[in-house]
Amino acid sequence: MEFGSFLVSLGTSFVVFVVLMLLFTWLSRKSGNAPIYYPNRILKGLEPWEGTSLTRNPFAWMREALTSSEQDVVNLSGVDTAVHFVFLTTVLGIFACSGLLLLPTLLPLAATDHNLKNTKTETTSKGTFSQLDNLSMANITKKSPRLWAFLGAVYWISLVTYFFLWKAYKHVSTLRAQALMSAAVKPEQFAILVRDMPSPPDGQTQKEFIDSYFREIYPETFYRSLVATENSKVNKIWGKLEGYKKKLARAEAILAATNNRPTNKTGLCGLVGKQVDSIEYYTELINESVANLETEQKAVLAEKQQTAAVVFFTTRVAAASAAQSLHCQMVDKWTVTEAPEPRQLLWQNLNIKLFSRIIRQYFIYFFVALTILFYMIPIAFVSAITTLENLQKIIPFIKPVVEITAIRTVLESFLPQIALLVFLAMLPKLLLFLSKAEGIPSQSHAIRAASGKYFYFSVFNVFIGVTLAGTLFNTVKDIAKNPKLDMIINLLATSLPKSATFFLTYVALKFFIGYGLELSRIIPLIIFHLKKKYLCKTEAEVKEAWYPGDLTYATRVPGDLLVLTITFCYSVIAPLILIFGIIYFGLGWLVLRNQALKVYVPSYESYGRMWPHIHQRILAALFLFQVVMFGYLGAKTFFYTALVIPLIITSLIFGYVCRQKFYGGFKHTALEVACRELKQSPDLEEIFRAYIPHSLSSHKAEEHEFKGAMSRYQDFNAIAGV
Amino acid sequence: MEFGSFLVSLGTSFVVFVVLMLLFTWLSRKSGNAPIYYPNRILKGLEPWEGTSLTRNPFAWMREALTSSEQDVVNLSGVDTAVHFVFLTTVLGIFACSGLLLLPTLLPLAATDHNLKNTKTETTSKGTFSQLDNLSMANITKKSPRLWAFLGAVYWISLVTYFFLWKAYKHVSTLRAQALMSAAVKPEQFAILVRDMPSPPDGQTQKEFIDSYFREIYPETFYRSLVATENSKVNKIWGKLEGYKKKLARAEAILAATNNRPTNKTGLCGLVGKQVDSIEYYTELINESVANLETEQKAVLAEKQQTAAVVFFTTRVAAASAAQSLHCQMVDKWTVTEAPEPRQLLWQNLNIKLFSRIIRQYFIYFFVALTILFYMIPIAFVSAITTLENLQKIIPFIKPVVEITAIRTVLESFLPQIALLVFLAMLPKLLLFLSKAEGIPSQSHAIRAASGKYFYFSVFNVFIGVTLAGTLFNTVKDIAKNPKLDMIINLLATSLPKSATFFLTYVALKFFIGYGLELSRIIPLIIFHLKKKYLCKTEAEVKEAWYPGDLTYATRVPGDLLVLTITFCYSVIAPLILIFGIIYFGLGWLVLRNQALKVYVPSYESYGRMWPHIHQRILAALFLFQVVMFGYLGAKTFFYTALVIPLIITSLIFGYVCRQKFYGGFKHTALEVACRELKQSPDLEEIFRAYIPHSLSSHKAEEHEFKGAMSRYQDFNAIAGV
Repeated sequence: MEFGSFLVSLGTSFVVFVVLMLLFTWLSRKSGNAPIYYPNRILKGLEPWEGTSLTRNPFAWMREALTSSEQDVVNLSGVDTAVHFVFLTTVLGIFACSGLLLLPTLLPLAATDHNLKNTKTETTSKGTFSQLDNLSMANITKKSPRLWAFLGAVYWISLVTYFFLWKAYKHVSTLRAQALMSAAVKPEQFAILVRDMPSPPDGQTQKEFIDSYFREIYPETFYRSLVATENSKVNKIWGKLEGYKKKLARAEAILAATNNRPTNKTGLCGLVGKQVDSIEYYTELINESVANLETEQKAVLAEKQQTAAVVFFTTRVAAASAAQSLHCQMVDKWTVTEAPEPRQLLWQNLNIKLFSRIIRQYFIYFFVALTILFYMIPIAFVSAITTLENLQKIIPFIKPVVEITAIRTVLESFLPQIALLVFLAMLPKLLLFLSKAEGIPSQSHAIRAASGKYFYFSVFNVFIGVTLAGTLFNTVKDIAKNPKLDMIINLLATSLPKSATFFLTYVALKFFIGYGLELSRIIPLIIFHLKKKYLCKTEAEVKEAWYPGDLTYATRVPGDLLVLTITFCYSVIAPLILIFGIIYFGLGWLVLRNQALKVYVPSYESYGRMWPHIHQRILAALFLFQVVMFGYLGAKTFFYTALVIPLIITSLIFGYVCRQKFYGGFKHTALEVACRELKQSPDLEEIFRAYIPHSLSSHKAEEHEFKGAMSRYQDFNAIAGV
Repeated sequence: MEFGSFLVSLGTSFVVFVVLMLLFTWLSRKSGNAPIYYPNRILKGLEPWEGTSLTRNPFAWMREALTSSEQDVVNLSGVDTAVHFVFLTTVLGIFACSGLLLLPTLLPLAATDHNLKNTKTETTSKGTFSQLDNLSMANITKKSPRLWAFLGAVYWISLVTYFFLWKAYKHVSTLRAQALMSAAVKPEQFAILVRDMPSPPDGQTQKEFIDSYFREIYPETFYRSLVATENSKVNKIWGKLEGYKKKLARAEAILAATNNRPTNKTGLCGLVGKQVDSIEYYTELINESVANLETEQKAVLAEKQQTAAVVFFTTRVAAASAAQSLHCQMVDKWTVTEAPEPRQLLWQNLNIKLFSRIIRQYFIYFFVALTILFYMIPIAFVSAITTLENLQKIIPFIKPVVEITAIRTVLESFLPQIALLVFLAMLPKLLLFLSKAEGIPSQSHAIRAASGKYFYFSVFNVFIGVTLAGTLFNTVKDIAKNPKLDMIINLLATSLPKSATFFLTYVALKFFIGYGLELSRIIPLIIFHLKKKYLCKTEAEVKEAWYPGDLTYATRVPGDLLVLTITFCYSVIAPLILIFGIIYFGLGWLVLRNQALKVYVPSYESYGRMWPHIHQRILAALFLFQVVMFGYLGAKTFFYTALVIPLIITSLIFGYVCRQKFYGGFKHTALEVACRELKQSPDLEEIFRAYIPHSLSSHKAEEHEFKGAMSRYQDFNAIAGV
């Protein structure tokens, strides 16, 4: 890619970003759009514009984001979001500190050398050399003493990273502890999840068995248990009932608005069959379903008890301690973990046995590994054909279009990146599905697992894949003949500089276009207005139309980590990328701060358990960077390349020490944290009721289901024999 | 080695064993020898010969051993000993089941083939071929379909091993659970060990700090704490005081016996200086030391508190649960483990911090690895020069002695083995010292660690070392040029059969001579009688002279495991070794049963925590066996050699599953086990006092130190501010 097209791509992106930001400033001030730009504040019961001046200043949102405190984030969006900001701040800190030293030293050193001029005749591929390369390590001659500065840069970046990571881990650990210490009553802190229960002795139900087991061990602190049940049928009935209720509400809304009794057909999709009065029809269906539901609920509680349960304790310490203790001499029976929040419990996974979970896990790891490997082939293929020259050969009729210079330049700069982005958009759902199939009991854990898989996928395919794709075709035969690690490192090292410009563009595209779309929320806005105008009849339907959704960590985290990995790996080879990294994470921080405070509503709270996951992958990226630099300095035949090795070992030790010191506090709840006093003595009945699945609580239950759940809960008692 | 010298060695060993057994029968019936042959029964307050008939039958002890039940062993010698018998039974079972199938099938197959005759001309080393080799796999021709039987044998042995190991792990797990469920009060079940305490806030002592910390977390079940102190000085004073007391008792005994007041000199070793009256002199010294001790005890409790403590709880469940729970958000602070028994607590290690322990551990692993590697050199050297031919060259003047045929034969059969045994005797103390230096808090754990190191040492040096020593010198250059794993396996496989006879002799020597000496206790008997006659004056001194000591697992377990490894590896190559393995473990079971019931007094009880350690190493031996067979079948160019690979993978999976299912129950105390009711409500004061180190309890304390400890304990309270 030439320097010109790089600048064009950058400029275009920037213009798009500015346009989107102006759009945002304009649109977000219209009160009709408030549910799109301030849903989180609305749901929290706050005024959308409270404390903010309705200014036309397009930078006002930035000021608001910058002045908000971490406590604001915790209050409005939870610990997990705050932890994500720690992640962004940490990376920003690392890049800023690195850039401060590296940019003023390495760029002049690279610019004043002349390796590329000398070896220009040697390069075989035309056009890959550009002015940008003059500013990279590629322009340093072999064995040059200037390489000392680049080696020093590797050290500087590593040390800065250790420092920031250590500080961040400590900080997040405190954040988590504070949240867990909070005087507010949270149901999950009084419960543990028990799985792999053995079959009860004859004449006992699963529920009686678990009660007697835990009552013997905890005569004083055991409160009660909620045994998991096979809910698929009752869920189905409940789902139908909810559907009917919505349709009835809709019919009533139409009646109120138009004064005509709405009708519908009873057949497939309301298109065929008998014409009936909707209100009467749905009322009848609802009554029928309610009767069904009640019968099925009783059947479920009596006959479909599973070998898992949520067990409740009277104090937080008792629950925290119970969740960490081995209960049964046979470790694969009566396994315990901390209970996830009620809203993120994956009931359908609870009944899966320990060894089955392990087997599923390995099977899925294997499957994902295959996916990672075989996705590489189409990606390499895509990045090979999406050069314009190749496209022209394959699709000759686009030639006239391509020959218009402007279009050509734009296509040339965006095409490979867009292909890549589209390609990657197909994957996350598959990975989340696979992660859930592992038998993980909570949503947050499944998302962490999916995020991990996605990260490995991105690094392997996007980073290594794209980097090697160019050179791979030539050397694939050599490698196949004699696959050695040093050769692969060498290959990686020599092909890195060639791809630097690609990644500069990739990062720039991601932040300007990505964050522009994120901030302006153009697409949700359009969908919302369309739905509101043509589809929504009831209040509930309107709310559903603007409900903002989650922060989607499953793709956000690996996406950011990929940029981090790319920036790390090029930070010394092409230090210019640090500027892009700083913009990416700085702008990301600003935009996400805005979105977290005003837009997104987290769908769960895991008290920062994402952090060890992120920490480890930042370290892995650093490790990759060090290995690559070892290879690249070696390729430059620098005599003191071996000095990188102590750094690589330090990274491993650093990771080990961090794990030893901090990880336990994330895996379990420390007792000193759980023993803090509560504001008031907890209402244990309410805690218990929070875990009863919707389909098993009374059908009368609406938003505030206390009464319903209460009667339900009495049924529950009567049946389960408490 | 020729067949003749093999038989001579076997015969001699057997004769020695018979003589020793007859000696044992004769000596053990003399009542003066009872403290040597029945010390455990005497210490338990039982009649030495109770329930045994004083017969002259030399096999009577065998009958007694065979009729004793596992419960007898648990009662008289504890769970650890019972677990060791499970180990012996399991291995015996494996070998017996293997032998039943393998001996009748493989021996005829080997004997009727003729590889050795055909290739005899090819072998370069004279005399290594013997009649024994005809019965081994060496006699099978390459690519012979008979190799199917040998492959089948590998499968059979592996399956039998899995079966017995699984059964044994289950059984031991039950044994452990039963012991932990016992209704008897054991101090260690009410306590946890807390280490890595942070510095207390200003104005608090370490003791106050820990009390307030645990009282907050466990307001109801926390009883009190015993903070560790820096005891080196007070221990020294206490040691001196004990010495003076012994000398005073001795002087008084002499006075009573001879009616002469004994005197001694005050200088070095009682050889120089002023002549004084011993009784007066030691009484004075005792009074002085008592005063010193009291001053120092107060100083220790007030000023020398360390960052570790034993914390006591009011119930077993509370302690078991506390020992498994994370207490502090920072994992390297307030670390907890189950408390070891008072008698095996290594106080001097408690103050070592977590990361210091980790560093020490890795440093010591590194050091031991070096030791293992460099011990190989002298061993190879020894086994190379201890052939008679070489000895004659080096020490020419032994030639006339050697030429006497009888001596020559005996020397030829024993010399290399004796050299090896002597060599190995030097190591265990070093390894135990190193293991303690890791910072391990309990004796039993240190012994497990030492045992593990010793096992690796034995396998690497004795087994692999001796096996390769013969062939190594020729091929060491080839390997140095091109060190590849397959080459090493190949080398191992081809050199294995040559060493088969050596190991047959080694195992035979170990069981006949080793168990003969063990059973007859000739050496302790002689030492006891000499001491009693010439040295002991007081009752206490006599008791010290016959006190039997421990079962010394640190060397016993790796010793047995080495024989197991050897037997496994040769079980298919030279199936004859199975007979020797069966005799080794059968005879070992009998002799040890006798010794456990009557002689040894365990110095600690770890409730079977040795088992996972043993289990893992049996599996490791099986794994080595499978790898060796893979190599050896490959060396026989057997086409279906790859069929061993599924077996190797199965071993890994089996180990993983066992660890998942059982190991947790050994690492921690399961709560369902700890929650069983006690016979009586525990005397918590007594439990607390059991942990006060001798040097800190009152000097007046004798055998039953309740009163002394009581007053001491009041001092303790007064000073530590409870």
